[in-house]
Amino acid sequence: MDEFTLIRQWTRDLPTRPEVLVPAGDDCAVLRVHGADHDWLFKTDAVVEGVHFTPEAAPERIGHKALARCLSDLAAMGGLPLAAVITIGLPQVDEAARVQKIYAGITELARRYQMAIVGGETTRSPGGLFLSVAVWGWVERGRAILRSGARPGDAIFVTGELGGSAAGKHLDFEPRIREARWLMQHFDIHAMIDLSDGLAGDLRHILQASNVGAELLKRAIPVSRAAKQAALRASSAKPPLVAALTDGEDFELLFTVSSRDAVTLLDAWKQAFPDVRLTCIGKILAEPVLTLRDRNGVEPLTLHGFQHFCPSNSSAFPQS
Amino acid sequence: MDEFTLIRQWTRDLPTRPEVLVPAGDDCAVLRVHGADHDWLFKTDAVVEGVHFTPEAAPERIGHKALARCLSDLAAMGGLPLAAVITIGLPQVDEAARVQKIYAGITELARRYQMAIVGGETTRSPGGLFLSVAVWGWVERGRAILRSGARPGDAIFVTGELGGSAAGKHLDFEPRIREARWLMQHFDIHAMIDLSDGLAGDLRHILQASNVGAELLKRAIPVSRAAKQAALRASSAKPPLVAALTDGEDFELLFTVSSRDAVTLLDAWKQAFPDVRLTCIGKILAEPVLTLRDRNGVEPLTLHGFQHFCPSNSSAFPQS
Repeated sequence: MDEFTLIRQWTRDLPTRPEVLVPAGDDCAVLRVHGADHDWLFKTDAVVEGVHFTPEAAPERIGHKALARCLSDLAAMGGLPLAAVITIGLPQVDEAARVQKIYAGITELARRYQMAIVGGETTRSPGGLFLSVAVWGWVERGRAILRSGARPGDAIFVTGELGGSAAGKHLDFEPRIREARWLMQHFDIHAMIDLSDGLAGDLRHILQASNVGAELLKRAIPVSRAAKQAALRASSAKPPLVAALTDGEDFELLFTVSSRDAVTLLDAWKQAFPDVRLTCIGKILAEPVLTLRDRNGVEPLTLHGFQHFCPSNSSAFPQS
Repeated sequence: MDEFTLIRQWTRDLPTRPEVLVPAGDDCAVLRVHGADHDWLFKTDAVVEGVHFTPEAAPERIGHKALARCLSDLAAMGGLPLAAVITIGLPQVDEAARVQKIYAGITELARRYQMAIVGGETTRSPGGLFLSVAVWGWVERGRAILRSGARPGDAIFVTGELGGSAAGKHLDFEPRIREARWLMQHFDIHAMIDLSDGLAGDLRHILQASNVGAELLKRAIPVSRAAKQAALRASSAKPPLVAALTDGEDFELLFTVSSRDAVTLLDAWKQAFPDVRLTCIGKILAEPVLTLRDRNGVEPLTLHGFQHFCPSNSSAFPQS
């Protein structure tokens, strides 16, 4: 078991209170306070120089990304943001101009979702720039969409196109707040997650939380243009389908609904979001396996998300 | 104007919402949500290796400090914590054991205040360990104690003893949640702040927010044993009184009350908290000056908090 998985397990066993409906382990924590007609959502995340962005990245984009990551987690619960607090760790002195640009990126995104930024701490960080964001949001009482609700027979959907986010999307993506709100208002979404670790990794999070399995349809996986271009440019790059399954930071929504709703949902989606692709990529199974179907049959999907991805795995991936 | 002051000014002009009663700039943000009988408090803070702790510091103490700093800010508003989310940036691989100890420190403190830890993100941080904490708490509706309420004639009080925190207290201090709750329940506290930048710096925050001045009584300043010992050990160390005025990270409460309440408060405090010193150190003035009174008269206090402290200043300090 890898380090981050180990740590994730511990953090599910931290001190709790009666108000906590969902502790650490889903996209956001869910709390219900006596008397309120909504549930509260609470989430933190950080971006670090050299890990989530390069030193050359424009500060506005770094600010955007830091907040957008948290909003993507709120979206995955079906929620809306209310307020955020930001901590910036600054490596050098006299970086006031850089901080102003970082806040410009944060502010533009915050205004688009009518949220408040109510705290901005700044501290020294000799080791490099980092931004930590905590978001506080809400969802209608009892309506938070968890990872644990997937049921055998459900259709699996994904928004947008996957893979190759490192080429630029990881800094500029729009969190799918509007799409997620529309989904939860019009359909009975059983389970949802935002794609941060890659489709293969994040789908496993849904499967584990729901105690089910899944079969993906190989030719249905929506591969991004960026992933295809990367593969054309360098023979050492991942094959596009591998990128779509394993690249991190797509920040698209992955969700399941009853297969009865699948066609209606696709039709209504095209009306509501004509510019955002929505694809049915497979179905939920009762047995806890993850398989990939192509014209030759079904094989186990052994690829994992980007934290765990080892390039030598890619040759084991069925090419066709 | 220094960098951090500049940034603090910008962060008061960030996007807001009607729910925001107090934006960034006080110890916590204060939000009021329609229908609630309490106000919400929201705060973030971070500790960084090489800035807030050395690489040798025990991980349990680092965890304790990271959460305790935020709780100290909640205390300064008169509030109680409900939940926190944590982000840890890890410099090396295979640090799971270290993370477990950090969480042990966090957990012990969280249980003492019946709060939940509802999120624990872990990320790589090539430049060094950092912990970012966001706390969500509450206070009775309209009862948050701000920095802006000090009035001419108020008595100025400080808890505990000041200076020399770097010798150990900065890692182990207990946030003054209980004391602050007792104060706000039994007295009309006009203004309050927790001492993180040093008495001289943080008192100025109250004075600026309240548009008033203050006179401190030199012999009343409660100087810590640690500050006195540091001065005895090294002639290059700050004189103890300078340390008490300018050292950061005391995490004591500084507050003002009507002078009519001062004696009653001191008597009641001794009953309630026999082990915690409480000292009246001066009074609030109408004119916006900050002065220090000793047996020879009154002089302007030119010392600032620890971020701004320049050793050459100390010779300008009146020695007696």
